[in-house]
Amino acid sequence: MQSDRLAQQIQFILEIDRLKLILRQTLLKDGSRRENSAEHSWHTALMACVLSEYAPTGTDVMQAVKMLLLHDLVEIDAGDAPCYDAQANIGKADREQQAADRLFGLLPPNQSAELRAIWDEFEAQETVTAHFAAALDRLQPLLLNQQNKGENWQRYCVTRREVTKRVGPIEWGMPELWPFVQQVLDDCVAAGYLKEAPVSCGYFE
Amino acid sequence: MQSDRLAQQIQFILEIDRLKLILRQTLLKDGSRRENSAEHSWHTALMACVLSEYAPTGTDVMQAVKMLLLHDLVEIDAGDAPCYDAQANIGKADREQQAADRLFGLLPPNQSAELRAIWDEFEAQETVTAHFAAALDRLQPLLLNQQNKGENWQRYCVTRREVTKRVGPIEWGMPELWPFVQQVLDDCVAAGYLKEAPVSCGYFE
Repeated sequence: MQSDRLAQQIQFILEIDRLKLILRQTLLKDGSRRENSAEHSWHTALMACVLSEYAPTGTDVMQAVKMLLLHDLVEIDAGDAPCYDAQANIGKADREQQAADRLFGLLPPNQSAELRAIWDEFEAQETVTAHFAAALDRLQPLLLNQQNKGENWQRYCVTRREVTKRVGPIEWGMPELWPFVQQVLDDCVAAGYLKEAPVSCGYFE
Repeated sequence: MQSDRLAQQIQFILEIDRLKLILRQTLLKDGSRRENSAEHSWHTALMACVLSEYAPTGTDVMQAVKMLLLHDLVEIDAGDAPCYDAQANIGKADREQQAADRLFGLLPPNQSAELRAIWDEFEAQETVTAHFAAALDRLQPLLLNQQNKGENWQRYCVTRREVTKRVGPIEWGMPELWPFVQQVLDDCVAAGYLKEAPVSCGYFE
């Protein structure tokens, strides 16, 4: 009744349900709770459709949508390392490669290779499509952080310089939006959501 | 610094964050909590990529992915009416039309029309692409319900006949998977997750 191929596909579909349990640092717009990686992936994929006109020439927007749908799957095994926590990021690349081996390996071989290639393209950041996807991956939490009054930025004493570095991929992947991003940062500093100068909280020392 | 057009797009992107707060009846695979509609949309969109080989001839798979990413947005205003609750479904279509007017209306006119047309296509169920998307929308909770031992089915005394009707769109949208769906239902009845014959709990009376 059920082919081995379909069984493998269903197993993968059930396994990725666990992405809904991976909590990111970012809070939702209303600050009520932390966002999980499945919600984040949905949001960025739909953003790719809405903001496609800002993609660099040559971008395959639907490839970027697929990329964003699966870019965080490896967190099921490797977890979501807080971006400003250097300690938590040690060994992250190796953990994520192993996670990709296991997760995409659940699929039938031809599909495993196809989805792994999309994930590898995102990780390598060598194509305009990957640049566009990375830009959306960084723009989305910036917008949420502004809306929730930088609750996490304030908790971790994050500075404008750190966020500017973090959202840097937007300059490459959606250059037309870079002035808007600068304006968001200006507004966040002016509102006191983000520190202009480094202030040590001792959190990451 | 920011065009009216971009401002409208950003407003839409921020507004749809609320889909993460809309809880569905379905529990996650591990039964730990209810799924929200943003997570469900992500899961079905990625399923469309993985199960694309079962789509009927003529299906535009990437159009189906977009459809699944936005098919539940109207729940931000209209809520998620439990499917087996007839009372909660009265007036649902009107509420969802109004929600679509408001939400897609946040976007610049050409994009508003484009995304609304995709949502309308899903609702109308007159194309093979819409049939494929609807099939995934019904297959996903079936798989989760089986995994969490039919916790909701048991709570609401749901019968095999009710679930068969609910998953009916799979027969049209992914006919090749219909025998697999029947097997899932057989297994769920055999395991006691789903009632074979109607048993009244008085819940929906």
